Amino acid sequence: MEPVHTELFSHSVQHVLDLVGIFVFAISGALLAVRKNYDVFGMAVLAEVTALGGGLIRDLIIGAVPPAAFTDLGYFLTPLIATTVVFFLHPQVERINTTINVFDAAGLGLFCVAGTTKAYDYGLNLTASATLGLATAVGGGVLRDLLGNEVPSLLRWDRDLYAVPAIVGATVVVVLIKFQALTPATGVLAVLCAFALRLLAMRYH
Amino acid sequence: MEPVHTELFSHSVQHVLDLVGIFVFAISGALLAVRKNYDVFGMAVLAEVTALGGGLIRDLIIGAVPPAAFTDLGYFLTPLIATTVVFFLHPQVERINTTINVFDAAGLGLFCVAGTTKAYDYGLNLTASATLGLATAVGGGVLRDLLGNEVPSLLRWDRDLYAVPAIVGATVVVVLIKFQALTPATGVLAVLCAFALRLLAMRYH
Amino acid sequence: MEPVHTELFSHSVQHVLDLVGIFVFAISGALLAVRKNYDVFGMAVLAEVTALGGGLIRDLIIGAVPPAAFTDLGYFLTPLIATTVVFFLHPQVERINTTINVFDAAGLGLFCVAGTTKAYDYGLNLTASATLGLATAVGGGVLRDLLGNEVPSLLRWDRDLYAVPAIVGATVVVVLIKFQALTPATGVLAVLCAFALRLLAMRYH
Repeated sequence: MEPVHTELFSHSVQHVLDLVGIFVFAISGALLAVRKNYDVFGMAVLAEVTALGGGLIRDLIIGAVPPAAFTDLGYFLTPLIATTVVFFLHPQVERINTTINVFDAAGLGLFCVAGTTKAYDYGLNLTASATLGLATAVGGGVLRDLLGNEVPSLLRWDRDLYAVPAIVGATVVVVLIKFQALTPATGVLAVLCAFALRLLAMRYH
Repeated sequence: MEPVHTELFSHSVQHVLDLVGIFVFAISGALLAVRKNYDVFGMAVLAEVTALGGGLIRDLIIGAVPPAAFTDLGYFLTPLIATTVVFFLHPQVERINTTINVFDAAGLGLFCVAGTTKAYDYGLNLTASATLGLATAVGGGVLRDLLGNEVPSLLRWDRDLYAVPAIVGATVVVVLIKFQALTPATGVLAVLCAFALRLLAMRYH
Repeated sequence: MEPVHTELFSHSVQHVLDLVGIFVFAISGALLAVRKNYDVFGMAVLAEVTALGGGLIRDLIIGAVPPAAFTDLGYFLTPLIATTVVFFLHPQVERINTTINVFDAAGLGLFCVAGTTKAYDYGLNLTASATLGLATAVGGGVLRDLLGNEVPSLLRWDRDLYAVPAIVGATVVVVLIKFQALTPATGVLAVLCAFALRLLAMRYH
């Protein structure tokens, strides 16, 4: 299916934002590998899977093959850079856990919006687009937890609210599309909305 | 690949049967979430994955993208209704475990036949079609168990026979196709055959 | 996407080598099922998943649907033969663990080379092709460990080096492609290179 063109951000801005999201998600994957006592290769695998897994699932479902993760070298190399950072700095990285969580929240916001938009571009209906936006945002983390043999934190009572901000962000985007009000400015607002909700969930849970 | 047209049931009958199968599988997913002490969101995720996972795997493999799970709103909403039912009624639902198992057996029968037929429609050979029929019937349950961090019940000695009825149902369908004897009536017989075998397995195991 | 034609081996040679790789990987899957006390159906499922999972992931990602695993009956039957062998001979098979590991190392070498070549045939860039070669070689084992509820051995410090030989083999292939030096002879060298490295890793780790 040929994608309809509903570009939300300019291409280069989108690309930088994607790489930022990929980087921070990769950090969280590499850190789980450190906690699990995996070797440096295991760190790289978990970093790649966490950062690219959500987008990969989305791309397989909408038929965008080969997925962006395999056609853009920057997408592949960014998690390896994150792995290197964690490998040399992980005591410090763990201490700055709060900073990581803030970046991760930003990644969540970016990915739920970008995922929803891309799915809609490929002709899915609004509900399906929002669902795939959610899958893009949380899919990498679920794969990370599966490979790490942990119950996906997405599913547990005793973790911070993680999915709700992504659902809200994706829903805001499809409402904006529905009312033909999706512009770069409102798209950024949807990102910030999911981001802020996630920060609030971490603070008050 | 364009699907060959070998419609087994009329479209509206097929659709109702699909939704029934989705509903009963979703109940089993939501109940696992309750037993695992997940929150209501975890219940919804497990319900969606259990009900739609098998068909999703089949659709990705045969190249039917975007999968039916994402293009038909009823497929998406039915597991959420099942989640709501379990959320408000789960003590009662657990007590009616036998009833659930009967519905689940019906879902198994429906999905192994529908999955086999759809795969054959997309041009796969008979063995591959039967394998995908099996995958459609059991795939959702395997994903449910993976996300719940359990060994897939499909694989264990000490569980009731689960795969065999689905294999028999799928095999009956491909034999019927082979001898050009697949009609709505014989298709229903294949469903009933898998269904009855599953009930017998539960009773005498 | 139509595949570019860069056939590495003649088709019949390639097919025999594929089946050998599938067979030895299937043995390792069936043996894990025996150790986990699964029934014979569980053995067959783990054998199929281990042998065909890596190629299936690759084919979904490059858009080669339906995947070879479903269009070639030999691919499907070989793991069932391996299951039968393990079922009747598994005490002996376990005693010949070293032999298995040697075959498994051969499978690893074959699959990383065949996976890289196929991905390149479908138009992916060199880095993506090597990554998919790695995924083809190790993907089945990761799925096997996930279904067996084990931490993927790929990721653990305390296991023999498994991924590195596959990475080396895949990298050798893309370097050969880059310098237009990929011939049957050099392709076999890449297979032997990965194979030998894996044997050395088992011996000296």
